[in-house]
Amino acid sequence: MTVRFASLDSLLDPGSVAVIGASADPTRIGGRPIHYMLSQGFRGEILPVNPNRAEVQGVRAYRSIAELPRVPDAAVIAVPTALAIEAVGQLSALGTKAAIVFTAGFAEVGGDGDGFQAALLAASHGGGGGMRMLGPNCLGLFNARSGFYPIFSSSLESGWPRPGRIGIASQSGAYGTHVFAVARNRGLGTPICVTTGNEADVTIGDVIGWLAEDEQTDVIVAYSEGIREPESFLAALAAARRVRKPVIMMKVGTSSIGRDAARSHTASIAGDDRVTDAVMAEFGVIRARTTEEALDIAQAATKRVYPAGNTLGVITISGGAGVLISDAAEAVGLPLPAMPEATQARLKAMLPFAAPRNPVDCTAQAFNDITLIGRFADAMVEEGGYRSILAFFTQVGGSATIAPRLREQLNATKAKFPDRLYALSVVARPEQVAEYEADGFVVFEDPTRAVVALHAMGRLGDAFAQAPDPAAEPMTPVALPDASPSEAEAKRLLGLAGVASAPEQACGDAEMAVAAAARFGFPVVMKILSPDIVHKSEIGGVLLGVADAAQVRDGFRTLMARAKATAPLARIEGALVAKQLVGGVECIMGIQRDPVFGPVALVGLGGIFVEIIQDVALRRCPFGPDVAERMIRSLKAAPILLGARGRPVADIAALAEMLSRLSRWAVAAGPRLQSVDLNPVLALPEGAYALDAVIEVAGIEVAG
Amino acid sequence: MTVRFASLDSLLDPGSVAVIGASADPTRIGGRPIHYMLSQGFRGEILPVNPNRAEVQGVRAYRSIAELPRVPDAAVIAVPTALAIEAVGQLSALGTKAAIVFTAGFAEVGGDGDGFQAALLAASHGGGGGMRMLGPNCLGLFNARSGFYPIFSSSLESGWPRPGRIGIASQSGAYGTHVFAVARNRGLGTPICVTTGNEADVTIGDVIGWLAEDEQTDVIVAYSEGIREPESFLAALAAARRVRKPVIMMKVGTSSIGRDAARSHTASIAGDDRVTDAVMAEFGVIRARTTEEALDIAQAATKRVYPAGNTLGVITISGGAGVLISDAAEAVGLPLPAMPEATQARLKAMLPFAAPRNPVDCTAQAFNDITLIGRFADAMVEEGGYRSILAFFTQVGGSATIAPRLREQLNATKAKFPDRLYALSVVARPEQVAEYEADGFVVFEDPTRAVVALHAMGRLGDAFAQAPDPAAEPMTPVALPDASPSEAEAKRLLGLAGVASAPEQACGDAEMAVAAAARFGFPVVMKILSPDIVHKSEIGGVLLGVADAAQVRDGFRTLMARAKATAPLARIEGALVAKQLVGGVECIMGIQRDPVFGPVALVGLGGIFVEIIQDVALRRCPFGPDVAERMIRSLKAAPILLGARGRPVADIAALAEMLSRLSRWAVAAGPRLQSVDLNPVLALPEGAYALDAVIEVAGIEVAG
Repeated sequence: MTVRFASLDSLLDPGSVAVIGASADPTRIGGRPIHYMLSQGFRGEILPVNPNRAEVQGVRAYRSIAELPRVPDAAVIAVPTALAIEAVGQLSALGTKAAIVFTAGFAEVGGDGDGFQAALLAASHGGGGGMRMLGPNCLGLFNARSGFYPIFSSSLESGWPRPGRIGIASQSGAYGTHVFAVARNRGLGTPICVTTGNEADVTIGDVIGWLAEDEQTDVIVAYSEGIREPESFLAALAAARRVRKPVIMMKVGTSSIGRDAARSHTASIAGDDRVTDAVMAEFGVIRARTTEEALDIAQAATKRVYPAGNTLGVITISGGAGVLISDAAEAVGLPLPAMPEATQARLKAMLPFAAPRNPVDCTAQAFNDITLIGRFADAMVEEGGYRSILAFFTQVGGSATIAPRLREQLNATKAKFPDRLYALSVVARPEQVAEYEADGFVVFEDPTRAVVALHAMGRLGDAFAQAPDPAAEPMTPVALPDASPSEAEAKRLLGLAGVASAPEQACGDAEMAVAAAARFGFPVVMKILSPDIVHKSEIGGVLLGVADAAQVRDGFRTLMARAKATAPLARIEGALVAKQLVGGVECIMGIQRDPVFGPVALVGLGGIFVEIIQDVALRRCPFGPDVAERMIRSLKAAPILLGARGRPVADIAALAEMLSRLSRWAVAAGPRLQSVDLNPVLALPEGAYALDAVIEVAGIEVAG
Repeated sequence: MTVRFASLDSLLDPGSVAVIGASADPTRIGGRPIHYMLSQGFRGEILPVNPNRAEVQGVRAYRSIAELPRVPDAAVIAVPTALAIEAVGQLSALGTKAAIVFTAGFAEVGGDGDGFQAALLAASHGGGGGMRMLGPNCLGLFNARSGFYPIFSSSLESGWPRPGRIGIASQSGAYGTHVFAVARNRGLGTPICVTTGNEADVTIGDVIGWLAEDEQTDVIVAYSEGIREPESFLAALAAARRVRKPVIMMKVGTSSIGRDAARSHTASIAGDDRVTDAVMAEFGVIRARTTEEALDIAQAATKRVYPAGNTLGVITISGGAGVLISDAAEAVGLPLPAMPEATQARLKAMLPFAAPRNPVDCTAQAFNDITLIGRFADAMVEEGGYRSILAFFTQVGGSATIAPRLREQLNATKAKFPDRLYALSVVARPEQVAEYEADGFVVFEDPTRAVVALHAMGRLGDAFAQAPDPAAEPMTPVALPDASPSEAEAKRLLGLAGVASAPEQACGDAEMAVAAAARFGFPVVMKILSPDIVHKSEIGGVLLGVADAAQVRDGFRTLMARAKATAPLARIEGALVAKQLVGGVECIMGIQRDPVFGPVALVGLGGIFVEIIQDVALRRCPFGPDVAERMIRSLKAAPILLGARGRPVADIAALAEMLSRLSRWAVAAGPRLQSVDLNPVLALPEGAYALDAVIEVAGIEVAG
């Protein structure tokens, strides 16, 4: 295993920590960390720094960093801006490996704050010793395993973290500790919680990566408002997937108001949420919509059973619950196959009132002979073959008389088939729930929440089982023109990369156009040819169904006149004549440069599907045709390409090949490429052709 | 107020109850009701009936119904099938007003069970005294207000219902009592819970109606697998809306597996879930996706503040939570308008670190002077004008030192502006939560759940504020033909009702067709005219773009030949010639007869929108053009009709008028009308025309 994230070791588990701005008041920002570490028995040394005190909260204090008896591994910075920069510089020079900067007033306030943050970062690098810095403007972190609490959150006043194997990484301090507090109150163990604040140095990607490599962490819960740098984030997700560790992520800022709020909150360049979403999907990250869902999934994940090819068997004592669970399973896409006919017959013989299909309703009658529950459960696992079992027993699961015998039955099944995932929907007291959980059952009162969590376990299993997508073959670097090219030039450039267009020719005069049209065969399409006119159809610059030589001549005249009238300053090179392809399905393909993740490819069906329903698939470039085909097949409108209602089946392979080539070309074109827009791309029963192409490139900067 | 549902009074609140099949064992089906009523002090008289005992659980018992000292108001039936039918008949004859039949083995098992159920129902009617019967195959009901517990659920072993004003109506016994148990454990008061089982007589509609008229109930939570009869259901929803009482409904069976499970579970003819959904929407019923959501919304509803034109103001101490809440609000469609600029400036001056736009992030700094919270909250209500306020204070809301002062501030704002809805997202102990709830705050730990519940309150407010849709003007009864008519006849019939088609003529020979085409103007459309061929396009029976007289003659020949070749036995009447309309947007309209709710109208955009995305709106017939227009505007694809991306705007009024007329025609056509399919309907900038019409009618039954 690579140890890329080991540079955070001193941040999370130092042997000694200085507290710059140490306070004797345990409720103040410089006092809380010391108070917490003292009460939880930090196993390292605490070195308070305070110019006015020889002792802080009973610990020997020092007047300045210079007076410290030794170089601390880590330091908490709880002093105003200017002093914080100075302290970080001093500590870095000494060789301190980690700083946790609580101080606010940096990039999050804008203005001078940006400069202060740059100075702070420079100071942290000053010593050359590889200091890693958390914050500024962060709430801190805790590592309950070593009693390390460099954090000023009041959430610890209401209780300490429980032991466990879930780690929390959050950009927001208040929300990260909210997640911790909710988890703790639910009985979930989150011994590590890191909040990254402004992320001048350490980012959420670094923290996820460290947790991925940490052998005492099994599950990672993350909260993000926007990814600031891609390298560590991508490496972290790859590392987590490699070791089969779930990353469950709340990525907020999907809405326009949310994005505005995120910007004003942390000054983060949030990037495009859909791009981050595509990156998460690429690595099998589970995106949770709510805090509760994130913790539900984390709770299920602590069992470490991730069933690839998941199927759900439901055993219930309420037919109604069976229906509700079936609906929930279909809504998330978790299959609920029927039991084998022979098994159904056998179960029905055992218990005539049972509905043995799946959901298997064994009715309250089963409690007359509790071993029926065990026999039914065995049959479901062994003969039904379900990867996940959800048992709905409502308050019976919490009944004093029946629950112990029920537990015995279920545990017997579980012991026989330990590779399956077992969940219970019961209404029971917290102590009873804790017992079931200790047995290895995932327990949810609400059956719908159980279904969502079980489905997530299957998605994780699929992601872990799938080999990472092979690296796409690189293309030779592309020489982009100095400015955005004309349509014809754009098609020529893409044509070199194997992105096919309809046969076409740039024609400088009407007779050339007639000759070209005759060669292609009528009808043809004619378009204004100009590097300065991008949206041709809006000025009447596209003529369809041009049917003979006379119409070509007329058309040429018309186009030139329209160009002159609407864009008198544009350079007009003539007309583009192309064979008019008929039939097929109109798609769109494109490239957009994301500020964080670079070129991102997009594919969708044309027209209303993109306009009205925003039915598109996105992916970071480059990628191979297999990935491209998965993207195309993931579209809601994919059935239209696949022959729905007697339509001809489009050439998906050609479409996928084109998309893959476009993605590789975008990388080869380098950072000056701003966007590519192929709209429409016509997917025919054989072949796929771009009917229009717009490439935007950034101008070349000329040294002044 | 009408008292339509008063016939259930004896079922829910009798002065005396006989228990037929009374058991001395308090855990048996005939023993539990007596045990529960004794422990909860039923305020009426208990009359156990048991052929072998003079006393049951300390209560004087009787050997038979005949020996009862007086006529019981109500009776619990806990004896096998044949005896149950007999007992119900005897009691009905005596004049008992209500029976609660636990006994299973009726319609839910099929076969003989159907006959037994018919006999049971007949027996209940036998006395002519208006007995109402719950079940059979039901778990029973409870009314904690009078200690009436004719129920054999074990859910009461773990605790009694709390006092409160939420009523539960459930078709499923096990699930209904699960909802009760979860509600109780959450601290919600549900003194009434009725489970309807097979619904031979009393349906969920009756129960909802009784709760709507019950002055001690404010909120109704319902669970249904399928509505069996429309009258009481529709009357109940209308009654609830009239008195501004929310109905929160879990309607399961949305999925195909769920529907199968529901069928096997209760033998209910579930009808089309989409139709039930449309009916619920019509009456402002809130459809909850999960039990948890249903109870969240019920919890919020107990505050009885239903803000029409809802807007959300968010006050938070975590910018991250603000972003997450913004996302959640946008996802459900709850507006989050910005605070007025002047107020923002004033708040920023008060607290420089605040983000005062909305979400209003007053940061943890606000706790340095707790009155800031009050001043911010006042400003949000008074100047921001929000109808709902959500305050995110996470664990601070549960802190021993800050929470009391926080509560004081919030209560002061609430007292000044009591017409608003206030919710808190806090991590606090149950006792603290109970205090906040008693103050009138809706408290949710999870902010997303709070947003969903607040949004539902606004939807209820809108539904209550809106006048019921005026009754659509009836049409004169339609004389349907004996069998399904030809396209031309279908169009003629609908034309009489004002549903316009393109100008067209039925032509018996080619020369008639040429004359008709010349009159309409070319191009025209030609179609095979036959009452026996429904899907004309599939056999090449539709010719588009017929451009001149010669093509009309050719076309006529072609159509006749194709008809002969593919349907040699069909009656061929000639060809239908119609003007070919161009441009516009293709829509579909139709009528389907729902087994429960009768004719239901459907509208959508044509082609892929219906096929792939199932983007349609449904509504019970009949309805006026206002309702029709709302349906059309509710389509996801509505922007295409409304001029998206420079398209011409379609004539929505004409489309709505057509849809309303179709709905009224469907009612006037009576129950023999099976379906109408207008596909496509062309919506032009002026006018809307059905280009095809298929009417299916049931044959007339001939007396044998």
